[in-house]
Amino acid sequence: MENIAYYNGKIASIEEMTIPINDRSSYFGDGVYDATYTRNHIPFALEEHIDRIYRSAAMLKISAPMLKDEMGRLLRELVRRVDCPEQMLYWQVTRGTAMRAHAFPKEDKPNLWVLSWPCSVKDIHAKLKLCTMEDTRYLHCNIKTLNLIPNVLAAQKAAELGCDETVLHRGNRVTECAHSNVSILKDGVFRTAPTDNLILPGITRGHILQICRENGIPVDETAFTLEEMMQADEVVVSASSVFGLPAVEIDGKPVGGRAPELLEVIQQAYMKKFLTETTPQAG
Amino acid sequence: MENIAYYNGKIASIEEMTIPINDRSSYFGDGVYDATYTRNHIPFALEEHIDRIYRSAAMLKISAPMLKDEMGRLLRELVRRVDCPEQMLYWQVTRGTAMRAHAFPKEDKPNLWVLSWPCSVKDIHAKLKLCTMEDTRYLHCNIKTLNLIPNVLAAQKAAELGCDETVLHRGNRVTECAHSNVSILKDGVFRTAPTDNLILPGITRGHILQICRENGIPVDETAFTLEEMMQADEVVVSASSVFGLPAVEIDGKPVGGRAPELLEVIQQAYMKKFLTETTPQAG
Repeated sequence: MENIAYYNGKIASIEEMTIPINDRSSYFGDGVYDATYTRNHIPFALEEHIDRIYRSAAMLKISAPMLKDEMGRLLRELVRRVDCPEQMLYWQVTRGTAMRAHAFPKEDKPNLWVLSWPCSVKDIHAKLKLCTMEDTRYLHCNIKTLNLIPNVLAAQKAAELGCDETVLHRGNRVTECAHSNVSILKDGVFRTAPTDNLILPGITRGHILQICRENGIPVDETAFTLEEMMQADEVVVSASSVFGLPAVEIDGKPVGGRAPELLEVIQQAYMKKFLTETTPQAG
Repeated sequence: MENIAYYNGKIASIEEMTIPINDRSSYFGDGVYDATYTRNHIPFALEEHIDRIYRSAAMLKISAPMLKDEMGRLLRELVRRVDCPEQMLYWQVTRGTAMRAHAFPKEDKPNLWVLSWPCSVKDIHAKLKLCTMEDTRYLHCNIKTLNLIPNVLAAQKAAELGCDETVLHRGNRVTECAHSNVSILKDGVFRTAPTDNLILPGITRGHILQICRENGIPVDETAFTLEEMMQADEVVVSASSVFGLPAVEIDGKPVGGRAPELLEVIQQAYMKKFLTETTPQAG
């Protein structure tokens, strides 16, 4: 298949798949999601993403639709059905199907959605242009939910300005981007916001922290300001298909570019980990 | 029909209606809605609700799917198809159907959803029990969007405590409820939060303000605190099917009940307006 959609056991192409109008995503965005990049039909870091969607669901008291192992088997099986070996794998769990009423439905029967479609990982040599915007989101940004209108508006701002991403900030504190984390390198230290309720605990962000520790690069998990970002040696954007890319411009002003060798250590280590995990084992 | 669902021209019962998986409501909650109460197949204050959904859509740069007059005709026609004369009429506009990507889709083709189902207006003599909760929502509460997870969690808290609604507050400032506005009567004055970005400009709230002005009751549109609410003469909850009902208990403590005659002036005027507008004209 060119792409695939799964909804509670039903399978079709994304273009042909329909869902019940009364799924609670329709009225409340009442669900959580996760996504990872897939190469050679092997979803990267799948267990970590499954752990995270379970945590997101638990924080909203959404029940798990199946055991973690079963979810992993299902996701691996679905990506094998898509022809293209480089795919985005996206899945979400919503709080069931019921007539519209805010409180949880009586029947505890979550819905599982899975989609996968061809997608290329962002070129590791790309240089990003960013813009900035006040972060007006709710105080649950640690949960990967379907309530994403402020993120949509931020991404649209970037698109209209010809930028790759929008950096969000609460007053002077940088939080994250519309659909990525943002970190900085300064004086040899990798600095990134702490995982409080204002940012998503990005899995790529976590891998980069681990790589830093393995490579003797000090890490500092404290929030940084807009000024500190503008004066950083490198500004680093990370997401599931963005493996730690540098920004060269923010709001039209040049940034970073002063620690390319250090950033390359991180990028190369990341790419090695990614390629190793997504290369089929011989035999 | 017992109930009705409409999606871009397709009509079915709510239970049978399906929608494309790629409607942007599915992934982003990327849409706006409105709702009103319908009696004798006449939607109450329909023009005001249509004006509001157009304003909500415009604030998110979602295009209107049709002219206001056409929307009004369609909504009136759909409620006539439902047997029960007392209905909730709910409709939403979403930002089109497209493969998942945060920025707006290239094709500007919004989707119109309409649902109507039997619903009774809340008994005007009911006395409400409320609970309270920190308001953790985004800073776009003046827009009636489909990003409602914090409202869902607040409504669920009320349900679990056997309460009717949850009063949200930012620190000490009362904002509104999970799906209603909340106002107070104190020393003969009707006081309600200003329509900034922290509350929805409720249409019932607006009607009550108008009724106060017509009846010589002073109004004060300044925010009030939790303490001021607890010490108010009456605490008044309003929504499209809740015509200004008094709370008698908040977080287990007794409140209000000290200005029932004044509240009844408002309630009676509201009910008269509602019954007049929703009674078919002779001839």
